[in-house]
Amino acid sequence: MQRTVQDVISAIIAGVPGAPFPETIDTLKTGAADQPVKSVAVTFMATYEVIEKAIELGVDLIITHEPTFYGHTDEIDWLEHDPIYQAKRRLIDEHHIAIWRFHDYLHSLQPDPTLTGLLKTLGWNTYALPDQPFVCQLPPRSLHELTLEIKAKLGGATVRVVGDPQMSCQRIGLLVGAWGGRMHISRFSNWSLDTLVCGEINEWETNEYVRDASAAEHPKALIVIGHSISEEDGMREVIPWLQARLPEMPITFIPTGHPLRSV
Amino acid sequence: MQRTVQDVISAIIAGVPGAPFPETIDTLKTGAADQPVKSVAVTFMATYEVIEKAIELGVDLIITHEPTFYGHTDEIDWLEHDPIYQAKRRLIDEHHIAIWRFHDYLHSLQPDPTLTGLLKTLGWNTYALPDQPFVCQLPPRSLHELTLEIKAKLGGATVRVVGDPQMSCQRIGLLVGAWGGRMHISRFSNWSLDTLVCGEINEWETNEYVRDASAAEHPKALIVIGHSISEEDGMREVIPWLQARLPEMPITFIPTGHPLRSV
Repeated sequence: MQRTVQDVISAIIAGVPGAPFPETIDTLKTGAADQPVKSVAVTFMATYEVIEKAIELGVDLIITHEPTFYGHTDEIDWLEHDPIYQAKRRLIDEHHIAIWRFHDYLHSLQPDPTLTGLLKTLGWNTYALPDQPFVCQLPPRSLHELTLEIKAKLGGATVRVVGDPQMSCQRIGLLVGAWGGRMHISRFSNWSLDTLVCGEINEWETNEYVRDASAAEHPKALIVIGHSISEEDGMREVIPWLQARLPEMPITFIPTGHPLRSV
Repeated sequence: MQRTVQDVISAIIAGVPGAPFPETIDTLKTGAADQPVKSVAVTFMATYEVIEKAIELGVDLIITHEPTFYGHTDEIDWLEHDPIYQAKRRLIDEHHIAIWRFHDYLHSLQPDPTLTGLLKTLGWNTYALPDQPFVCQLPPRSLHELTLEIKAKLGGATVRVVGDPQMSCQRIGLLVGAWGGRMHISRFSNWSLDTLVCGEINEWETNEYVRDASAAEHPKALIVIGHSISEEDGMREVIPWLQARLPEMPITFIPTGHPLRSV
């Protein structure tokens, strides 16, 4: 049976609790809904390199977690005359690549695959609280030890840290991606966290709250691991779920990799 | 003559082209407009530690560039029951510290003191284009050399980089703070930049544009130096301007320091 882009999207949405959502940024960004699909790739972000790899693999539909055109809503009017946008668009159009975003629906799955993926990478499955899986209760260790442990499990990635290195950490919240300061800061209270591990911050928000906490003698800690690092393993994790909904469809994972190097 | 908080604010606004602005987040965040002011401190951010230092110095008005309560608009309803907010609020109220934000008005000054401060720190005054001072035209150097040079001039701060280390950099845009992806990306074209040095990014925007640019064989580079690092020198730089408008008022600079350490 020849499947179309729409068939694939519909099969995914049918598996999401409460879907379809009246408002979502999970829309088709390139290509047409009635295009045939022979092969699917799943990725954190459809970068230029990921698209080249997809073409090489004969993929015609890329399922991406994050935007393709440098903004949350993938608006393109402001980019029309930009040479990088034009080159990327040309690559996509010449090879008839459909790109669909799988963000809001993905985070609605229970459990959220991005959390499952990060827990597996950190080896913390047994520490996650059954009724609050975003919270891990660990045997106490210093922030310094915790930082080195996380760094090692993330393959040596540079992480950014706030808090006293000697502070004892044991109740650790995980918030992948970029939830923003209000969510991060509220979770410290709501989840009684001493430590938050997150993907990305605005530098006038969460880190300043944690800096103030230490100064006010309510010690807290923050470890910022990078947005793509926090979610890429989750996109790999979702493939069996997708495969169960799309039997016989070849589904490949294409790694995006973290763009920033620390010097 | 006894000056009030309002006198100080009015003296500053009187010196800003086009001021007062009908909409601005430059408002009084704590204290009252009719409070007397004997001594002013200028800072990048009124953190808990900065406020403690201000109290020690006998300061009653802090002029801060960035927010005090962990969000751009300094809303506090969501923080009412938060112990860190409560502790900070107590410190402020017990010592009758007025805090006024100097952000939108500061960036409207010609030249923008945050740019002047960063140019001075980098030693690039002679490279800034007279009609486009946010653009520096440098003798060509590799991205690797440029990164090490900037890092050294910023006192060894860890910077985050995208782009081929061997790429030649010579037309460099400076955008302090957190202007966002649209501004960053548009400036690459509008200012014909090969390299952007900026304070802070959203990790699904500027860095991904630069990563795509390299892959699409239009090499570009990005150096992210940190929000507070990009603007703190500018807050020091504005003090003579303030002093000229507030003769006889003691004005002290209190450094905030960068909150994040890279491991």
